[in-house]
Amino acid sequence: MLTSWFVVKHVLTFFATSTTLFYYFSFPMATNRSYGTQICPGDTRFEHVGSEIGQRFKRCLVGVRLSRVAVSFLIIFLLFHYITNHFLNVLPNESQPSLLPADTSYRLRDLKHIKDLKRIKKSVSIELRDLEHKRNQMQDDISTHQGRLNSIEQMSKKAQNELDVLKRQIIQLKNEQREAAKPKIAAPARIVASETDNIILPTPTHYYRCHMHNCFDYSRCSLFSQFPVYVYPQKRNQDKSDIILFDVTSFIIGATESAFGKNAYVTHDPNSACIFVVRLGEVETAEGANAPAKIEASRVTNWLQSLSHWHGDGRNHILLSLTRRSTAQNPLLGVDTGRAMIAQSNFAPTQFRPGFDLVIPTLAVSGSVQKPQTSEQEVDQSDNDKWLDDSRSWVDEDIPVQVPAMRKYMLSFQGQWEPAGNTQIAIEDPEGDFKRMNIGGDQTFHQVFVDSLSKELNSNLHGKYLVQLKCTEDRLVTPGYSSEWALCGNFASRSLVLAQSTFTLISAPEQPSVVTTTSIFVIRLTEALRSGAVPVVLGTHAVLPFDEFVAWEKAAIIIPQARITELSFLLSNTPHAEILSMRRQARFIYDTYFSSPYAVVDSILAVVRSRLQIPPLPVLDEPSDVIEHESFKIENHEVSPGDAQSEFGIPPPEPRIDSPKFIRNFTTATIDSRDTWNSVPGPFNLYPYLPADRILPTDAQFMGSTNGFRPIGEGTGGTGKVYQSSLGGNSPREQFTIVMLTYERDDVLMQAIERLIGLPHLNKVVVVWNSPQPPNDALRWPKIDVEVVVVHPNRNSLNNRFVPWDEIQTECVLSIDDDAHLRHDEMLFGFRVWRQHRDRIVGFPGRFHAWDAAGGKWNYNSNHTCELSMVLTGAAFFHKYYMYLYTHWMPSAIREIVDEYMNCEDIAINFLVSHITRQPPVKVTSRWTFRCPGCPVALSQSQEHFDERHKCINKFVKIFGYMPLVFTQIRADSILFKTRLPHDKQKCFKFI
Amino acid sequence: MLTSWFVVKHVLTFFATSTTLFYYFSFPMATNRSYGTQICPGDTRFEHVGSEIGQRFKRCLVGVRLSRVAVSFLIIFLLFHYITNHFLNVLPNESQPSLLPADTSYRLRDLKHIKDLKRIKKSVSIELRDLEHKRNQMQDDISTHQGRLNSIEQMSKKAQNELDVLKRQIIQLKNEQREAAKPKIAAPARIVASETDNIILPTPTHYYRCHMHNCFDYSRCSLFSQFPVYVYPQKRNQDKSDIILFDVTSFIIGATESAFGKNAYVTHDPNSACIFVVRLGEVETAEGANAPAKIEASRVTNWLQSLSHWHGDGRNHILLSLTRRSTAQNPLLGVDTGRAMIAQSNFAPTQFRPGFDLVIPTLAVSGSVQKPQTSEQEVDQSDNDKWLDDSRSWVDEDIPVQVPAMRKYMLSFQGQWEPAGNTQIAIEDPEGDFKRMNIGGDQTFHQVFVDSLSKELNSNLHGKYLVQLKCTEDRLVTPGYSSEWALCGNFASRSLVLAQSTFTLISAPEQPSVVTTTSIFVIRLTEALRSGAVPVVLGTHAVLPFDEFVAWEKAAIIIPQARITELSFLLSNTPHAEILSMRRQARFIYDTYFSSPYAVVDSILAVVRSRLQIPPLPVLDEPSDVIEHESFKIENHEVSPGDAQSEFGIPPPEPRIDSPKFIRNFTTATIDSRDTWNSVPGPFNLYPYLPADRILPTDAQFMGSTNGFRPIGEGTGGTGKVYQSSLGGNSPREQFTIVMLTYERDDVLMQAIERLIGLPHLNKVVVVWNSPQPPNDALRWPKIDVEVVVVHPNRNSLNNRFVPWDEIQTECVLSIDDDAHLRHDEMLFGFRVWRQHRDRIVGFPGRFHAWDAAGGKWNYNSNHTCELSMVLTGAAFFHKYYMYLYTHWMPSAIREIVDEYMNCEDIAINFLVSHITRQPPVKVTSRWTFRCPGCPVALSQSQEHFDERHKCINKFVKIFGYMPLVFTQIRADSILFKTRLPHDKQKCFKFI
Repeated sequence: MLTSWFVVKHVLTFFATSTTLFYYFSFPMATNRSYGTQICPGDTRFEHVGSEIGQRFKRCLVGVRLSRVAVSFLIIFLLFHYITNHFLNVLPNESQPSLLPADTSYRLRDLKHIKDLKRIKKSVSIELRDLEHKRNQMQDDISTHQGRLNSIEQMSKKAQNELDVLKRQIIQLKNEQREAAKPKIAAPARIVASETDNIILPTPTHYYRCHMHNCFDYSRCSLFSQFPVYVYPQKRNQDKSDIILFDVTSFIIGATESAFGKNAYVTHDPNSACIFVVRLGEVETAEGANAPAKIEASRVTNWLQSLSHWHGDGRNHILLSLTRRSTAQNPLLGVDTGRAMIAQSNFAPTQFRPGFDLVIPTLAVSGSVQKPQTSEQEVDQSDNDKWLDDSRSWVDEDIPVQVPAMRKYMLSFQGQWEPAGNTQIAIEDPEGDFKRMNIGGDQTFHQVFVDSLSKELNSNLHGKYLVQLKCTEDRLVTPGYSSEWALCGNFASRSLVLAQSTFTLISAPEQPSVVTTTSIFVIRLTEALRSGAVPVVLGTHAVLPFDEFVAWEKAAIIIPQARITELSFLLSNTPHAEILSMRRQARFIYDTYFSSPYAVVDSILAVVRSRLQIPPLPVLDEPSDVIEHESFKIENHEVSPGDAQSEFGIPPPEPRIDSPKFIRNFTTATIDSRDTWNSVPGPFNLYPYLPADRILPTDAQFMGSTNGFRPIGEGTGGTGKVYQSSLGGNSPREQFTIVMLTYERDDVLMQAIERLIGLPHLNKVVVVWNSPQPPNDALRWPKIDVEVVVVHPNRNSLNNRFVPWDEIQTECVLSIDDDAHLRHDEMLFGFRVWRQHRDRIVGFPGRFHAWDAAGGKWNYNSNHTCELSMVLTGAAFFHKYYMYLYTHWMPSAIREIVDEYMNCEDIAINFLVSHITRQPPVKVTSRWTFRCPGCPVALSQSQEHFDERHKCINKFVKIFGYMPLVFTQIRADSILFKTRLPHDKQKCFKFI
Repeated sequence: MLTSWFVVKHVLTFFATSTTLFYYFSFPMATNRSYGTQICPGDTRFEHVGSEIGQRFKRCLVGVRLSRVAVSFLIIFLLFHYITNHFLNVLPNESQPSLLPADTSYRLRDLKHIKDLKRIKKSVSIELRDLEHKRNQMQDDISTHQGRLNSIEQMSKKAQNELDVLKRQIIQLKNEQREAAKPKIAAPARIVASETDNIILPTPTHYYRCHMHNCFDYSRCSLFSQFPVYVYPQKRNQDKSDIILFDVTSFIIGATESAFGKNAYVTHDPNSACIFVVRLGEVETAEGANAPAKIEASRVTNWLQSLSHWHGDGRNHILLSLTRRSTAQNPLLGVDTGRAMIAQSNFAPTQFRPGFDLVIPTLAVSGSVQKPQTSEQEVDQSDNDKWLDDSRSWVDEDIPVQVPAMRKYMLSFQGQWEPAGNTQIAIEDPEGDFKRMNIGGDQTFHQVFVDSLSKELNSNLHGKYLVQLKCTEDRLVTPGYSSEWALCGNFASRSLVLAQSTFTLISAPEQPSVVTTTSIFVIRLTEALRSGAVPVVLGTHAVLPFDEFVAWEKAAIIIPQARITELSFLLSNTPHAEILSMRRQARFIYDTYFSSPYAVVDSILAVVRSRLQIPPLPVLDEPSDVIEHESFKIENHEVSPGDAQSEFGIPPPEPRIDSPKFIRNFTTATIDSRDTWNSVPGPFNLYPYLPADRILPTDAQFMGSTNGFRPIGEGTGGTGKVYQSSLGGNSPREQFTIVMLTYERDDVLMQAIERLIGLPHLNKVVVVWNSPQPPNDALRWPKIDVEVVVVHPNRNSLNNRFVPWDEIQTECVLSIDDDAHLRHDEMLFGFRVWRQHRDRIVGFPGRFHAWDAAGGKWNYNSNHTCELSMVLTGAAFFHKYYMYLYTHWMPSAIREIVDEYMNCEDIAINFLVSHITRQPPVKVTSRWTFRCPGCPVALSQSQEHFDERHKCINKFVKIFGYMPLVFTQIRADSILFKTRLPHDKQKCFKFI
């Protein structure tokens, strides 16, 4: 007995000692240093199921390092071995002598007192029974009271919550009321101008005296008018005079009919029109296309006067002279065009009215399907349907990629000097008014030009030059003017050279009789833009197409002819990043304004509209085919993790607030007109909101522009509940829409919707029902705080994720897969991050594009990484604006690839956004992957899925012309994430 | 004996069981799941001192959760208690019967064998001794060998490290070598043009036929030439003809002499000049200023011909006609100016050559010190020295603040129609060429204008209008033309009204004889820009000053006269953010191009230089007064926390790489010319690098533009060591410079420098020795991997923190206080974050501006917050570009406040950067405060310090005109921070 006691005693001593040791080893850091310890990352699941003891124990262990625990353990183990060994040797000798003491005589002494004791026992037990009874009664009372108290407390809490909600709603309503004072602006309405005002003012006698302010009738074109355009119907063979001047070739007829037919501004009611378009044909006489065109100016003048809406001076008319001939002449030279604007490529200096007439491209460029052709025929034979397709959704797959910056040739020039050339129409310049300065002595510019190029060609100092000053005899495209560099080869052969050229030289028209461009010049320019050879325009006197709004200096190098000797130096000092930027901009200009008759016609009308400061037509939302469904209230729904109400006591969501639309109708057409012309997607549409809309200075939030702003702590800042109660930031308060793509996973979907109960700032849930089967009527849709709208697209496509449904009424869209388990706090933080990066995709899981050096191509990569370039759209915030661009602006080839693979839509939108912003996406919070416990193995796990994604990336790069993705090494966290705080301070979010 | 054995057996059994249990509880997650476990953050100190056993044990424990350990422990503890209790009850009954068996007869039996045994014992002990000896010997041998082995291992490790370093250096050198092939470009050198080429070409006969390409001699102005300007000296009273035309008033003489004197482009050598400036005076005849000026055009023509460098046609000449009179006329009307450019405010339509002549502001605006004046005298009496000061570092403190967006009056107009007016010089327009269209019937525009304004005034529909169509009799400023709206009141009274106006109406000249602006128009425009009343220019025919490069549509609303009826609607639909943006832009235009004779003269020259595509002069670095010092090698320096070498085995720093400078010399003058004109700091300086320089697409990093790029994992991405070995990102590799401000804290400084040993990507340490006393010679400067340069500014100022010292040779600057303890990994991550946000301040401790609603002012706030707007520059990365702007562009008033308080320099640079970018700073990592154990209590703790900072903020807001700070709710962390990773994966950084 004693031996074992002794053993136990020793063991206990050992334990006490080791426990003390354990504590000594484990806690000193936490007590001795105020920082340097790191909070062990708590497992959220554990935290929520853990009992209070678990919590306390955890709190005790805070600051304990695993390594220390391990060491302590080891020491305890060793100590134990030592002690037990010690026992084995020592214990027997010590313990034997003290065994078994004897004392049994004691019991008989007190037998006589038993009776007394029995009595006492009885009375005590009765007393005890009474007491027991009383106690039970009292306990019952207490528990009853406790129950009442609890229920009262619960009721009071509920009432307090309701009060909070009401207060919040009152504030909300007050704000709404105040803000309602300023009327919201809708998309502009079309109004009709009256046709009464026919006052004829004297026409300016000198060509150069016609400007918009004295030759244009604004009264037909109010800011509201939406720019109605009337196109005169094409008359053919009606009368002899028409035929001679306006025998428009079949190509031109087809192209313009089709282009104007698709243009949304065109009206058939001349009375309401702001602009009248007269289509002129290419100059073609009875002698054929190659013969010099002799136009009788007076006949043309008469013909113009006879137009039904000419009004004596042709006000608000555009005389549109489209051509695709390299020999195109100037059909209106000497014609009295009155107050009509002229739109053509080649103006005489005495004819062109800057800011009034329009320099436009020729139609003489063709895409990939064109076969090699020679000489003149080329431009006529290259008709093809594809090219006549709407360019902005079609991609020319033969356009060379933009990278590398430096191509085989630093500079290329191909041409043949045609001093005799074609018979030309030219204005004589007896006074030398248009002669260029400073070419030096008797030299013509042509000589200096040839000398300079030859010198560079031989020096090889600044990279390889390709200079070809003579064409193969049968491969020369006749120019329309004398003293012009004729084109060599055909479209295909020239494109081949341009695709290998970093820069290409384009000499501005050299004869004084042309002040803007010539057909040959425009063909050279267009082909250069298309092929990514940066145009070097020699001659600042050339007025480039659409130069009123297109910032050519961003896409081309334009220098005066006198700087020809400095050209090599200038080119060799252009950094790669600038070359690639110009090449990208050139591609944008080509695609948007040059690539097809549609683009050209749209651009011509856009120039006039932009001049008039009339906003473009609004972009259209996709009408939603909404499936009605019934919702059922969910009793006792599980509180979602990170729920703001339970974490910070924030009342449930505020009433629905849609983002105000078309606030900037008119200012985009004034302040930002030039910007819209020089960036994606161009000036053709008005968007209800833009990601890059200007922010107000923060003082305006407190002075005069308080509407909609919810500063944190009323402007004093704060954390925890104060922070959670207001959106703060630099933009007014707003909400987001969840767009959830679903395909035949009813249960998963219902759970996903249920999880949204109580989510603040949510405006609406749009479920995109991708399955052809409509939802089962038996489906029990959970009733949540906001509307759940089920949209049924007409086909199953992953592109439906990015369709701008009209049901989406907020700028911010959260695209989410039905199986993505996002916590509420993650969504809330993501929303706040998006509000600061409205032009980017803000998402959760990151991916990147990895370079496969061996294959010389890109791979899709989902490994752990410290540098990412995409976020998955299974859980990502983005601006609704990008849905418009994805669906309407992005080349349709990309959407077709997405449909073909049923994959890659997330890669596509990452490409799109990075292409536009040249910025990486934003990754938020630490979650890396999403798991859905009940879901089948995700599509994204299979090897096939990955192979497709590799392919997609490389195909998209080909279509965009370069790799638009940009790297980021940053993750966005909330400001106080993992920050030690004083006890009385709250974090921004509890766990993220 | 047996009892204790029994106990021990039980205890061992218990231990075996509990250990097994422990393993069962701790490891299942690691084995059953591939993720979901989190690596417990290891303590570096432990890792480094730990034995190999520790390492192995640690490896075993990887994946063990602390919470599980705790639970296991608890179970073991309980189990032990149970077992010991069990022993106490069970053991005695079992063990008692077997106690003390007797057997003592045994000993006598074997006495006879003692001798044998003794012998055996002896031999055995001898044997044992031998063995012992041998064993000792062997152990000695072993330890000797072990020692040798260890030292060899160490040597081999060292050699391996050295090899790594060498390899890295070789790669580095190879890269350098390859990259050296493309020559770096320095700031452009000035070269001299020769004065030989005197060929006289025929001058264009028609005014409108002069353009740059046929009237300007480029040969004098090579791209390298740095735009030398020769200004003809002012002749006075020399000969009668000069006096009449060019009796320049004292103000104009003073202003231009001083302005040209300060202009860096001005040369005194006419032979090297690109441009010749002829200053013309205001038209003033013998009859006095108010009398009509009758100029004999032929006399002026003769005078011009007599100029020494006229060369027959005045090529490359600018005829500069500055004025400050409201009655200013057109002195050169009818004069044959040949090929000379004319720079003045008011051109006749038959005189102005777009793209050749320059429309410039008048000098008739004055600042705060001006006293109220009336009528004519105003403009002559307002000379004051302050205004003649260099505007770009001086701030006009009476400029009203920009917020709120909406002021008392929606629109204001003050003027008096002067149909009789002053005697004027006008070109007749018999043909009505310049008459504006569409004013309706017989009405003049003036009538429509008055009607429209009156209608709006009465409707009050679109905000309050202030319309005053008649001036008080004696407070009218005479216009220079008939049919013009005269100015009312004086500068002060007009400014008062403008400060209360959201918009102000400026009617473009209405008579056909002026095509650009008039003096009155320019005065109205300038005053509006200054006061923040957004100018509404009525009449698109007005050519605004510097409109070739200044994007007026960003600062003013310009609509054709015909839109007067739509004006109210347009204005009321302008969002507040746009109004404030235009107001801010207006202020920029005013400050940069209008505010003083310096600004005007600089701008005129800049227009011509920009046209010629010649880059501006480079901005100057501040020469450093370097104090030489000796450095000493530190033996056994403490390894800094977060050291990359010890954490990831990254070799020590690579050789010094300076950021390439002036790469974009010529392209900024072509591609970005318009951008530089329309954003801070304007077009006057060339900067060696810009924060917003374009990035290359990532494919270029692998194709053709690999120079300098260090993609992560050669393009395949990665974490841990792979990530740490390369900078990756979207910009080429680079380094940063640490700028450390110090003031008489030698020990702290020495420690701070020592802590930088082994820090990668560090280029240089620039210590700014703010104390007037030079450093003590006895100071032992630690020798670190990079150069430590001590710069001694000429006075103690906190502004010295942001001086662009010429010793700083990188784009990235890390400003750091000597007492800020930043870990190496924090600096490395901060540097990577900065590389992604090159235009922002990237810093560690955040602060914010809080609104004091009661006081209607801002407070500085350093509380814990979830939204910040500043980072402290005691530890912050920023671009060197901002040092140039802080020192040279920012209003000097701000630097003076910093010096006055010896405080707030960090607030100032946060204001500056946010003003330019309209973006918040970037806060990185979770550290909130800095501790310096040995330092005295920081300055920043005192209440006085805070009060000063409150004051600073409000003063700066006044100077900037609004609150430029922008909020952010985001912190940047490394991508895998606090992310659970599989065993075989490393993080980006171990602790951040």
